[in-house]
Amino acid sequence: MNDTIAEAPGSILIEDVEPRLDCGRYPVKREVGDRVNVRADIFRDGHEALAAVLQYRTTAEESWRESEMAFIDNDRWGASFIVDTNTTYVYRIEAFPDYALSWHDEIGKKLVAALEVSSELLEGIHLHEALLSRATPEDGSTLAAAILAARRETSQQKAVDILLSQDVRHAVFRCRSRKGLAQSSEYAVTVDRVEARYSAWYSMFPRSAGVEAGKSATFRDVENQLPRIVAMGFDVLYFTPIHPISTSKRKGRNNLLEAAPGDPGVPYAIGNDDGGHDAIHPDLGTLEDFQHLVDKVASYGMEIALDVAFQGSPEHPWLREHPDWFYIRPDGVIKFGENPPKKYEDMYPLNFQSDSWKELWDEMLRVIVFWVDRGVKMFRVDNPHTKPTVFWEWLIAQVRKTNPEVIFLSEAFTRPKPMQALAKAGFAQSYTYFTWRNFKQELRDYGEELTQTEMKEYFRGNLFTNTHDILPTILQEGGRPAFQFRVVLAATMSSVYGIYSGYELCENTPVAGKEEYLNSEKYEYKVWDWDRPGNIAAYIGRLNAIRREHLALQEYDNLRFVDTSDDNVIAYYKATDDRSDIVLVVVNLDPFHAHESSVRLPLETLGIDHGGQFRATELLTDETYLWTGGDQRLTLDPHVNPAMIFSVHKWIHQAFVERDY
Amino acid sequence: MNDTIAEAPGSILIEDVEPRLDCGRYPVKREVGDRVNVRADIFRDGHEALAAVLQYRTTAEESWRESEMAFIDNDRWGASFIVDTNTTYVYRIEAFPDYALSWHDEIGKKLVAALEVSSELLEGIHLHEALLSRATPEDGSTLAAAILAARRETSQQKAVDILLSQDVRHAVFRCRSRKGLAQSSEYAVTVDRVEARYSAWYSMFPRSAGVEAGKSATFRDVENQLPRIVAMGFDVLYFTPIHPISTSKRKGRNNLLEAAPGDPGVPYAIGNDDGGHDAIHPDLGTLEDFQHLVDKVASYGMEIALDVAFQGSPEHPWLREHPDWFYIRPDGVIKFGENPPKKYEDMYPLNFQSDSWKELWDEMLRVIVFWVDRGVKMFRVDNPHTKPTVFWEWLIAQVRKTNPEVIFLSEAFTRPKPMQALAKAGFAQSYTYFTWRNFKQELRDYGEELTQTEMKEYFRGNLFTNTHDILPTILQEGGRPAFQFRVVLAATMSSVYGIYSGYELCENTPVAGKEEYLNSEKYEYKVWDWDRPGNIAAYIGRLNAIRREHLALQEYDNLRFVDTSDDNVIAYYKATDDRSDIVLVVVNLDPFHAHESSVRLPLETLGIDHGGQFRATELLTDETYLWTGGDQRLTLDPHVNPAMIFSVHKWIHQAFVERDY
Repeated sequence: MNDTIAEAPGSILIEDVEPRLDCGRYPVKREVGDRVNVRADIFRDGHEALAAVLQYRTTAEESWRESEMAFIDNDRWGASFIVDTNTTYVYRIEAFPDYALSWHDEIGKKLVAALEVSSELLEGIHLHEALLSRATPEDGSTLAAAILAARRETSQQKAVDILLSQDVRHAVFRCRSRKGLAQSSEYAVTVDRVEARYSAWYSMFPRSAGVEAGKSATFRDVENQLPRIVAMGFDVLYFTPIHPISTSKRKGRNNLLEAAPGDPGVPYAIGNDDGGHDAIHPDLGTLEDFQHLVDKVASYGMEIALDVAFQGSPEHPWLREHPDWFYIRPDGVIKFGENPPKKYEDMYPLNFQSDSWKELWDEMLRVIVFWVDRGVKMFRVDNPHTKPTVFWEWLIAQVRKTNPEVIFLSEAFTRPKPMQALAKAGFAQSYTYFTWRNFKQELRDYGEELTQTEMKEYFRGNLFTNTHDILPTILQEGGRPAFQFRVVLAATMSSVYGIYSGYELCENTPVAGKEEYLNSEKYEYKVWDWDRPGNIAAYIGRLNAIRREHLALQEYDNLRFVDTSDDNVIAYYKATDDRSDIVLVVVNLDPFHAHESSVRLPLETLGIDHGGQFRATELLTDETYLWTGGDQRLTLDPHVNPAMIFSVHKWIHQAFVERDY
Repeated sequence: MNDTIAEAPGSILIEDVEPRLDCGRYPVKREVGDRVNVRADIFRDGHEALAAVLQYRTTAEESWRESEMAFIDNDRWGASFIVDTNTTYVYRIEAFPDYALSWHDEIGKKLVAALEVSSELLEGIHLHEALLSRATPEDGSTLAAAILAARRETSQQKAVDILLSQDVRHAVFRCRSRKGLAQSSEYAVTVDRVEARYSAWYSMFPRSAGVEAGKSATFRDVENQLPRIVAMGFDVLYFTPIHPISTSKRKGRNNLLEAAPGDPGVPYAIGNDDGGHDAIHPDLGTLEDFQHLVDKVASYGMEIALDVAFQGSPEHPWLREHPDWFYIRPDGVIKFGENPPKKYEDMYPLNFQSDSWKELWDEMLRVIVFWVDRGVKMFRVDNPHTKPTVFWEWLIAQVRKTNPEVIFLSEAFTRPKPMQALAKAGFAQSYTYFTWRNFKQELRDYGEELTQTEMKEYFRGNLFTNTHDILPTILQEGGRPAFQFRVVLAATMSSVYGIYSGYELCENTPVAGKEEYLNSEKYEYKVWDWDRPGNIAAYIGRLNAIRREHLALQEYDNLRFVDTSDDNVIAYYKATDDRSDIVLVVVNLDPFHAHESSVRLPLETLGIDHGGQFRATELLTDETYLWTGGDQRLTLDPHVNPAMIFSVHKWIHQAFVERDY
């Protein structure tokens, strides 16, 4: 090829690359240790052979690592790489003609047909000679020797055999040319630490951790609660905001417009003369106390998540210092929050697209970094859907530059598309509609939507049974059995889930006709009796222990539902890729009556011979059953066993036994 | 807003725009007169109102036309535009905050709640004042008058009413600001003439159009065949190559390696001393004769399609003049075609990526333009999958620049992905696997793949019953009934289909054990008795007449299968968007035995009340039935009615009659 002549456009096409999101606009998500399976349609005109490599690197690296792609079927090729660092990776595909293989194919067929191949042999020798300039000294001498031998050889078959010997083929592979190269776009992979996928969250108001009525608890009181929370097996301790609370426009108990003396106010009305988002409510303690608590929590193998509520109370320093960050009325007064006709006079929304947006965004970043520097690596973000998605994309990217270990949970209870957009933009975890999915088909549909559609690539649903804002009807109506099976569903349908404290006490007194707690902690100090009769703390502890013991429950996108005969009984399993761990969950969704149902296990998929025996150990009771066949009948009584969790093991079959004596 | 301050990034997201192909890499296809329905997810944070416009233009136009988008559901918006020119269109979406509507929503809710709104009213007045500089004089005076009146009005409700009067709202709409604009990428739409979607092709060897054995027919003989072909109702007359044929390495009858004296050779072995791709075989006539034929064909309302086989015979002028366009052996000899161990010594493949690729590509373009200039606007391209897809993309784009009416049909019988890639790259029509889909489920699956998946956006399947290379088993085994129902399937499943001549004679003598014709026209002159007993010319004529009379059969992506009780009976319907034309096709796929089957019509979808009466006229026999209910039983006898085609009409129901006397 004359280098002065422009090369013809390449004839190789690379299409339908996966995984990718929105044409590569957003990264897909994985966790450290994952294998990323890359697939693409790769083809060209005619019958010439192709080769393709998957190239990948972290954004910090300059050079690509490569993995040879293999043909799968129907012009689809695949390769994979392991992401072993908590950072961002990029990958792309290179495909190019495999000149050596094309030559090999052609001459091979002709030799089989006993055709004369002297011309083809000469082409092969030229092909090998062209590689000499690209070869290492070692490969070069291998090639040169083979070329010389092939030229001297009088038998065409033997000459071809020389050029196709294993040593020569390996040398050819190492110095092959990529002339005619096609290259895909680059696609990004956000690699989070494993806790982004696998963690159990416990949500609480730190001021309610005490023992004295009518008074704020302190961080030291929270430390006293840790053994109890650790015993239940939680990984993340999430606090509602810990900052100073406005005294003006303060709300009273049960959201009364005016607070009574001694009422503590809503923690989301952030800011007063003691400071704003980087200050701590003096009743809780000092920054040193907080630091002590962070360390103490870490010593239990847990971590703290803080609440990020980007808004200001009427007394927040931002209102004085940066009124231009807020919405201004025509008379110059700053606007408080509204959802007409409702007014939120204790909270002022920030204007993320004000003329001073740059300073405002930088301040938000400063607040996050302030807490990151104090050891907080998880943030639950309040109402992110009321701020621009592009702001979160910027903020999270900035934080990840220095602290890729930071995990943001999106509390966006809104329409599907904005919830998904926030996840695409960078939130590692997201609240979901699970809280309102109660029945068999809707639970199955939603579970499949989260884990079997494109959402699995970027949206990690953190299934919360309840929150301080939401006491779902099923818990109000269904009582203790519902508390048991809803936490089983949350903890086993997803690898990441959470409860709001009081759940373990089956606390379910609502504001009449609403899905809200009566006498909510949002507006008052609470003192709880954590040993209250009927509590399910031990049940939750066992459940989280089962999660720790079973790798299958630590994966997210391996949720598979199975058919059941009773409409009140839902069943699904999760299995590791290698089927070494298989967990079957069966839940009676009726909190009032027992139901008997058949459960149909896909034995072949599970690697169990059809009709074969297998062992099923119920993990909440530790009872073991011997099952035969894929169709099992189970009875679930809400007052005895509202949910069953089985570890399913193949019963090893030996056709005969042969021993050496 | 201070213009010196950089505007904050827009908060509106536009996602999942459709129609688009491969992230916008390729255009979608439509035909003149079509309505293009555009959809996208459009949303932002918070509760502010949005507006969006669809913008579209032809590539020849500089300014965009606009169509206001409407909210559909779940953050999805839609609008449409009509493509009325045979050219390329582009479209994009613009979305921006609807400041006026947001203000209207907010103040409306507050007025209903009897809140004080003087501040909000002032905001509204400011909002309207800001538009004055953008308004036409007429709108400006409407706005100014309203602003003045609203300022003077003491009743807040009345002041708001003034600003929300219809005249003012229309003026506001016309001069609204697009501050905070989001813009999608641009997407292209190839708009072909209607024949790209709707045409019936008749394929023939012009040299076989005569009446004298052992001798080439001429273009004049072809003219004599036109009344017969027109009577069958075909739109396109496709000729195998009409160029000079190589004398050396000429193949004999039934593909014998050596031709006997007088054997005409394969028309695909193009080129000899009489010329190449821009020359006409002297036995057929002159260029003037060809021109006469083109005009004659046009006078019958038909058009000619030529065969494009980009390769050279050993005697092609290209081999002498441009050996650098071919593949060269190490000894300097040009390589003939091979698919080892098979050799095609009468055909030399071109090297589209040779160093001289630019000159070669230009020559290919010159050949096409040569025939376009002589009135040929359709080309059937032989084996396009053995040339680079990127070459076809370039060639077709070049031709379309001056002649967008030209239609290319891809004869790519290869794997699915390369077939699809050629269609994406610009081929208006494509051969399909229909020829090998015989049974109910595989026909349904394939029909749905062609017309109900993304393929409908770019791949127009031209369903050929047979070709000069392919005599399918079903025709060999099934005889006349199979010829009848296969042409019904081709002509009604797709709006574009074709037969290869001889089909109307039920010619089906194969080379033993192969799907090839014995004594194929590829290798010899033929004289046909077009009135041969058992011929189905009149049947085909009626079928094409039915296509002309029924708009539903002229659409491509409206194929909908319905369930039948017998596995040998397939049924589907096609309907126009407005349901004014509904055609139901029922076919017995068993050519040997009669089958009775129920056919289940989706009456609601068809706009017929469930349980209502309706009229079904069988169009091949002109018999009319009165049917009640969606479940009809039909018997199809291969020797009587292998296929039935019904025109289905709603029976108008009047609950009572009221007349004025």
